[in-house]
Amino acid sequence: YLACKKEMQMLSDLPAETRDGYRVQLLANIDHPGEVASALAQGAEGIGLFRTEHLFLGRDTMPGEDEQFEFYVQVVQRMRGRPVVIRTLDYAGPSSPFFQPMHYEPNPFLGCRGIRLNLNFEEIFNTQIKAILRASAFGRVKVMFPLISRVEDLRRVKSMMRQAQEELLRAGKNFDPDIEVGLLVEVPSAALTAELFAPEVDFYSIGTNDLVQYTLAVDRASAGINPLNQVLHPAILRLVKNVIDVARNARKKVAMCGEMAGEPLATLLLLGLGLNQFSAAAGALPEIKKVIRAVTLKEAREVALRTLQLSGPEEVRRYLEQEMKSRRLYF
Amino acid sequence: YLACKKEMQMLSDLPAETRDGYRVQLLANIDHPGEVASALAQGAEGIGLFRTEHLFLGRDTMPGEDEQFEFYVQVVQRMRGRPVVIRTLDYAGPSSPFFQPMHYEPNPFLGCRGIRLNLNFEEIFNTQIKAILRASAFGRVKVMFPLISRVEDLRRVKSMMRQAQEELLRAGKNFDPDIEVGLLVEVPSAALTAELFAPEVDFYSIGTNDLVQYTLAVDRASAGINPLNQVLHPAILRLVKNVIDVARNARKKVAMCGEMAGEPLATLLLLGLGLNQFSAAAGALPEIKKVIRAVTLKEAREVALRTLQLSGPEEVRRYLEQEMKSRRLYF
Ligand SMILES: [Mg+2]
Ligand SMILES: [Mg+2]
Repeated sequence: YLACKKEMQMLSDLPAETRDGYRVQLLANIDHPGEVASALAQGAEGIGLFRTEHLFLGRDTMPGEDEQFEFYVQVVQRMRGRPVVIRTLDYAGPSSPFFQPMHYEPNPFLGCRGIRLNLNFEEIFNTQIKAILRASAFGRVKVMFPLISRVEDLRRVKSMMRQAQEELLRAGKNFDPDIEVGLLVEVPSAALTAELFAPEVDFYSIGTNDLVQYTLAVDRASAGINPLNQVLHPAILRLVKNVIDVARNARKKVAMCGEMAGEPLATLLLLGLGLNQFSAAAGALPEIKKVIRAVTLKEAREVALRTLQLSGPEEVRRYLEQEMKSRRLYF
Repeated sequence: YLACKKEMQMLSDLPAETRDGYRVQLLANIDHPGEVASALAQGAEGIGLFRTEHLFLGRDTMPGEDEQFEFYVQVVQRMRGRPVVIRTLDYAGPSSPFFQPMHYEPNPFLGCRGIRLNLNFEEIFNTQIKAILRASAFGRVKVMFPLISRVEDLRRVKSMMRQAQEELLRAGKNFDPDIEVGLLVEVPSAALTAELFAPEVDFYSIGTNDLVQYTLAVDRASAGINPLNQVLHPAILRLVKNVIDVARNARKKVAMCGEMAGEPLATLLLLGLGLNQFSAAAGALPEIKKVIRAVTLKEAREVALRTLQLSGPEEVRRYLEQEMKSRRLYF
């Protein structure tokens, strides 16, 4: 165990590079500034997903622009110029003091959450986006919006963002005018039409948890189906491949920030498909890096090609396990 | 109005055939044997979707095999040899006396409904499938199962069906041993991997209502987005095209039984994509037939090609409206 721990520590300083010199980036998913130190210790080269829900939950008053700015800028400053991707508020739980659904929703996951919440509660969104923009003056901030299903929604949210920028300009507050905007690909329609979003975005980030949920019509919380067998469903693999191919053709970076990105069994496959950035819980990064450093890009591409020919999650899982075992990459 | 009504009545006896002689079939969606007469009067050539939920709702005791058989066979006999596609129980409402969810489901539409219900409550499924099989001795019955997301689920349900057939054989009861089994394509993963199901099915039927709901992550019941703009999202059109192409390559028939099939604005497009059967509420069939009889297959194919190049639901809707208006097919 100690040997293993030491190996992982040594790994954190080494690049996430294949044996034939292909470089990817490992990023961390976080909820709170307090997690930055451990993300850096595990070798994170940036924050690929900074969730902002925690600032809003379990309290009676809305967090103001200054309070939010303080929260975001702590992460940005601690990351010292490394990229920090902030996701605007996503929420699909019981009703909150700040945003009551307009009407009873029998299926909250198919209702007013993500971008729909952002668009329906303009005041909350305007405050949040101004706080994020102000934090962008202190480092390399990028922003993405949850649950985008249509290009129109992205256009609308970007115009609200431009309005917030004008308000900051008038108030004499600094922000990065070239802040990058990403498409969080987590609704099947966005994955299926990823190329239609290309003119509107600077990068793509695939959120596999929601993507799996909607593509298979299975609540994440529901028992029964093995979660790994959901992620490895050929339909998910095809959607992931499509988004990566679209990003490559559009010369944009593509990340993955869902649980699949932190699953070592999927690393060879994702590498072979051409994923540029893996964003996962910090604790998962050393394992992922170990896999990446043990293989060549050529091998990974062969694995990806073969995986895409398989017809079911079980076959995919068995095949990937075998490829890992034959390389002594136990997990 | 009377002229229009008379025109529709005359239409009911004419085939659903394009001006250049391409023939499709118009089928009706029904919930109850009492709807057969009006379906036939509107020119339905079969029942494309016989929902069976109504037999189970609003009562305290399970409908037995004989009672279900009586219900199904009424439709089969009244259709006199025309096809009747029966869908096994789909249910996603408040808990029922017969099937309590195993645990609280925060999002019933992503939970234990459709085929998952069928597989979880084997006794209910076994009774229903035996009743359907017995009805198949009296006409041309086909069967399909709701919410299939994985080939494994279809294989499992088919093996349960074989077991029911053996039980009927032992009991000396008649059924059609060649009863056709269809894939109800209403989960994005099934649409994305439609060709993987080909060895297991005799036909495809696209259920657009649920397909839209999951592909766009929008509850059907939720307000806000115009339902037509959901159906015409390029992601939905691509999935529909994929299923139709797969069916053609596998030399199997493909139907559509969602609301899109009864939407005259979509008829030219669906015809051009190669849909074989349109199944809708009986009242919608004359309008659909009118559109089909007014155009050539060649024109419809051109419309479909152009539609697929458009980048948003609004553009699609405007373009299809214009094609309809230029042909004086007002709606
Ligand atoms: Mg998500
Ligand atoms: Mg359905």
